[in-house]
Amino acid sequence: MSDKPNLLDAETMRRLIVEAPFHQWLGLTLVDLTEEHIDLRVAWREEYVVNPEQRYAHGGILAAFIDLTADWAIAAKFGRGVPTIDMRVDYHKPAMPGDLWARGRLLKLGRTFSSAEAVVYDMSGAMLASGRGVYLTSKA
Amino acid sequence: MSDKPNLLDAETMRRLIVEAPFHQWLGLTLVDLTEEHIDLRVAWREEYVVNPEQRYAHGGILAAFIDLTADWAIAAKFGRGVPTIDMRVDYHKPAMPGDLWARGRLLKLGRTFSSAEAVVYDMSGAMLASGRGVYLTSKA
Amino acid sequence: MSDKPNLLDAETMRRLIVEAPFHQWLGLTLVDLTEEHIDLRVAWREEYVVNPEQRYAHGGILAAFIDLTADWAIAAKFGRGVPTIDMRVDYHKPAMPGDLWARGRLLKLGRTFSSAEAVVYDMSGAMLASGRGVYLTSKA
Amino acid sequence: MSDKPNLLDAETMRRLIVEAPFHQWLGLTLVDLTEEHIDLRVAWREEYVVNPEQRYAHGGILAAFIDLTADWAIAAKFGRGVPTIDMRVDYHKPAMPGDLWARGRLLKLGRTFSSAEAVVYDMSGAMLASGRGVYLTSKA
Repeated sequence: MSDKPNLLDAETMRRLIVEAPFHQWLGLTLVDLTEEHIDLRVAWREEYVVNPEQRYAHGGILAAFIDLTADWAIAAKFGRGVPTIDMRVDYHKPAMPGDLWARGRLLKLGRTFSSAEAVVYDMSGAMLASGRGVYLTSKA
Repeated sequence: MSDKPNLLDAETMRRLIVEAPFHQWLGLTLVDLTEEHIDLRVAWREEYVVNPEQRYAHGGILAAFIDLTADWAIAAKFGRGVPTIDMRVDYHKPAMPGDLWARGRLLKLGRTFSSAEAVVYDMSGAMLASGRGVYLTSKA
Repeated sequence: MSDKPNLLDAETMRRLIVEAPFHQWLGLTLVDLTEEHIDLRVAWREEYVVNPEQRYAHGGILAAFIDLTADWAIAAKFGRGVPTIDMRVDYHKPAMPGDLWARGRLLKLGRTFSSAEAVVYDMSGAMLASGRGVYLTSKA
Repeated sequence: MSDKPNLLDAETMRRLIVEAPFHQWLGLTLVDLTEEHIDLRVAWREEYVVNPEQRYAHGGILAAFIDLTADWAIAAKFGRGVPTIDMRVDYHKPAMPGDLWARGRLLKLGRTFSSAEAVVYDMSGAMLASGRGVYLTSKA
């Protein structure tokens, strides 16, 4: 995750994560934070389901998880959460009921904007979605 | 929305939309369906909030709304909801508390995959986010 | 193209466009510039061909044309060409030998970054590709 | 690059690459092909320049290079070049005069569509652009 040192430690990030009602709703927890990557976990909710027979989650939930994982990957290096400028998600496999986790990595930390990528997996390690976002990291 | 006639009418679409627990959670309703566009509305929930002081919604909610609006724009022409292959979202303005609406339009209906775009607005008409997705429309 | 007035007129834009060796190679010309849109044209070259039997152009040429059309749509409002932060292209139909044209429109002019969209057509009006980009428009 | 074996070897790929006039114009060469990645190189041309004073390449050249590197990463596993459905490019640093190289990796090989990512570097190893594409890999 580049040679930039982390500016947030795991304890601080855990405290910041639970402040957001959206994160609380997702049951978002920090699993691992290193200089190279960040791993986050989301708890399953029945409200995620889009297809009541086949029971897989709506892609919007995966998109939100990609966005916030990439965002926290940047926050680790930048010192705080940052606004998303835009993002892209690729869907690889339906997300069936069960917890989800995602790994995020910084791609580039810039003076005005920065980019990061994220991959969402199920608990068996199958890749469900992957993507990347660009975030506003100007100091002003 | 191309010269293809709609294969779903508003009544059928309304019935299909409420089947999904995720749509129910969003309070998703069909506002307007023409041959040219589809307008959908999402009800505000406190669980959308990411920043508890500034109180704007998490971008993932807007991403989900872009995805599902583009998906239903294709469903109108294709006859049913379709899997998202990938999507992109651009963020223009924070979404403050209040209902949201989105307009979707078909870009291209193809034999294997199709694309559509969507724009999310607040109730005053300010553009909050816009984007596009590609969807699997093979018959098999 | 928003209520912002154009800061570049067609004559100035024509002069700026021909300065770039890449634009010269593409045979890029300004066809139309209004407050709402910009239309640009690219001349066919045999070097565009990727498949020597079927003879369609490489998608990278269409991607470059999307990028520069969206960029000039922003330049019209901002006063000069701007760096691309990122972009997305959707491919709809192979580009067979013949000139290409594209229409660009501003989506959002912001203080730090701005977005625009573009659609590439062949001379019969068939849509070949469409996309959008985000551009750096900070004054500093 | 997944556990799928390569279906193209380096010799075959070299022969296929030079068939395309666009690849010839770019001076495209295969540098390395393993089960994990593909490395390609592009030769500098003055026609790439967009800004005649600062002399960096047009982003469209980098977009084309991202697209074709991701495409050949899939071709290695699928057995032939495939149509691009859509792609995204993030720009990290201007490409100054000098050769470019790119590394591509498969993200997911699917029955109907597949995705791959690519990163473009200058010869000093600085990351200039990165991105990903989705490609049509249905057999029919």
